[in-house]
Amino acid sequence: MTSSQQDIYQPSDKGGYSPDPHRYCVIMCGGIGSRFWPYSRTDMPKQFLDFFGTGRSLLQMSYDRILPLVNPENILVVTNRRYVDLVCEQLPEIPRERILLEPDRRNTAPCIAWAAYHIAAIDPEASMIVTPSDHLITREHIFEACVARGFDFVEHHDALLTLGITPTRPETGYGYIQIGRELEPGLLKVKTFTEKPNKELAQVFLDTGEFFWNAGIFLWTVNSIKQALHRHAPDLACVFDRGEAYFGTPKEEEFIEENFAGCPSISIDFAVMEKADNVYVECVNFGWSDLGTWGSLYDNSRKDEDDNVTLAANVMTYESTGNIIMGPEGKLVVTAGIHDYIVADAGDVLLICPKSDEQHIKVMLTDVQLRHDDKYL
Amino acid sequence: MTSSQQDIYQPSDKGGYSPDPHRYCVIMCGGIGSRFWPYSRTDMPKQFLDFFGTGRSLLQMSYDRILPLVNPENILVVTNRRYVDLVCEQLPEIPRERILLEPDRRNTAPCIAWAAYHIAAIDPEASMIVTPSDHLITREHIFEACVARGFDFVEHHDALLTLGITPTRPETGYGYIQIGRELEPGLLKVKTFTEKPNKELAQVFLDTGEFFWNAGIFLWTVNSIKQALHRHAPDLACVFDRGEAYFGTPKEEEFIEENFAGCPSISIDFAVMEKADNVYVECVNFGWSDLGTWGSLYDNSRKDEDDNVTLAANVMTYESTGNIIMGPEGKLVVTAGIHDYIVADAGDVLLICPKSDEQHIKVMLTDVQLRHDDKYL
Repeated sequence: MTSSQQDIYQPSDKGGYSPDPHRYCVIMCGGIGSRFWPYSRTDMPKQFLDFFGTGRSLLQMSYDRILPLVNPENILVVTNRRYVDLVCEQLPEIPRERILLEPDRRNTAPCIAWAAYHIAAIDPEASMIVTPSDHLITREHIFEACVARGFDFVEHHDALLTLGITPTRPETGYGYIQIGRELEPGLLKVKTFTEKPNKELAQVFLDTGEFFWNAGIFLWTVNSIKQALHRHAPDLACVFDRGEAYFGTPKEEEFIEENFAGCPSISIDFAVMEKADNVYVECVNFGWSDLGTWGSLYDNSRKDEDDNVTLAANVMTYESTGNIIMGPEGKLVVTAGIHDYIVADAGDVLLICPKSDEQHIKVMLTDVQLRHDDKYL
Repeated sequence: MTSSQQDIYQPSDKGGYSPDPHRYCVIMCGGIGSRFWPYSRTDMPKQFLDFFGTGRSLLQMSYDRILPLVNPENILVVTNRRYVDLVCEQLPEIPRERILLEPDRRNTAPCIAWAAYHIAAIDPEASMIVTPSDHLITREHIFEACVARGFDFVEHHDALLTLGITPTRPETGYGYIQIGRELEPGLLKVKTFTEKPNKELAQVFLDTGEFFWNAGIFLWTVNSIKQALHRHAPDLACVFDRGEAYFGTPKEEEFIEENFAGCPSISIDFAVMEKADNVYVECVNFGWSDLGTWGSLYDNSRKDEDDNVTLAANVMTYESTGNIIMGPEGKLVVTAGIHDYIVADAGDVLLICPKSDEQHIKVMLTDVQLRHDDKYL
């Protein structure tokens, strides 16, 4: 890293910008997005879907979004083994050797640790951004500027940086980050991470102005994260230290095959972020949604004059307000007399459910599995 | 006709019964059943659908039901030209020459007149039953006995006989028949035909015990109906009299082609039944529904413990009561928090509509046509 890197950055649409060759991106896309059932399916989770009918899936949009910031050959995808074909199909630009395939589901910490060790083996001077693949970001130019600033920050500090989204409502579905001392405008020490609050607490969080949504987007150098893993998640670091000689070599997959299942299943927040004392937050506001639920998709979508959100299908509504209605391309959906519902027709499954009951979907999924095994999951 | 015919009849399940060779059946199946949209479609109206998942369409069930009463070679189908392939496919037993194809829609009177002239040309001594193809009859043995009695009656009287269904509720969707003088138990002179009543009047009809539902099932001899046409619908009789020489010959279709469009578009009730003075009703009770609406399908279907009716699809309901839910075979439909709705997923069209708004469906169809032409009709 050299101090000239700050000067290198220019917005991508001005042309002529070449990203810092030490900057890497890890796109995580192994989740199953069950709260978005029946659109999100075990064999086609939501990150692979073109939710907005733009012609690009959420994963592809995540890739497109990072391209101005990181050289294409520095972009990696970590996913579950079963999704390798989907990733290859949707991101043909990414060769197979830059797709890290988890043999088992072990939450985010083992996945991120592996990616960090892998990148460190290729480039010990690397900095990296870790990003989910299934979120929505509407203002990509602001995202670009924020991430560029974040890279620059972690390249000059031994810091674990997380992006904190300025909250716009007392959301109970997100974790929050409480800010502490300000280093520079919009860049602050993290005081605490909190779990999802109840409605009253969420309102307090919003009112104080001290709390930001935890977007699960992280930046750090490989050195900083490896150090933090050694300090706060030694069991995990220990597994990957044993493989040090294999990362970036043909033996890497075999090593993972034999050792990944032995990793504790734990989130990076819990394993590292909540324990480390060099955690910082960059407070940002680039039109973010985790698209974790139908409700958040509704909130983030354009509404018609009756506050209905309609996606893909041809929809005609009568006395119907506040619904999110989604169906296959070319399908005609006609509704009368429904208010604040999810109507999600995914071809072989149709879900009709009040928006306010969407937390119910996980229960439904359990029932569906009991009756039909994995057929509709 | 001989008086020994009464002796010939025995219930079909006792075996050895051979239907009277002068008895004919005309199954009308040219309707489009628009109130059952989106299941009933212009190119696949409801009579061709296997609504109850029994493996037989309503048309096929109508055919099966009449088989014990009429020789198969005496069964005719009258339909619109566009449905000839559907009829041939569903009733391969009926050869092409016994399918009368209307070149235009002209309501029931021209269709019935044609069938009567056609049969008279083949068998001047014929008696005939005219029956819709899209109704539900649940107690077929009672139907069988009633129709046999009806045939016997019209073969011995110059009578136009209609079947009147004992009403079980103050239905506003049906026409009613007011009974007059009783000839024998359950066989009465018709006093008046009435249009669909409003709720209050329907309740009065029900309370008096003098009113029966008009099922649109008629019996008469070809002589009686031809006479009645001459007397009460001379313009219609005139058209068909001109073709007298062609019926039952290869020139019949050409004659119809040239003359059918010139027939007035009028129902047999209006053209003949409401005017003639030899109209009788046989009061029957064989589990009948005209299946004219989603509501009547709901009323006639088995309900689960939450009073939901589910057809074809795999359905799972949560806090959902009183709904009729229909989807393609193999589709999973999950509903939460809906009460008294129609949920009809017909593959390319999904309709969600309160049962109480079903009269709205015709308006929707107009809107659909405006937006999408005939694509979804």
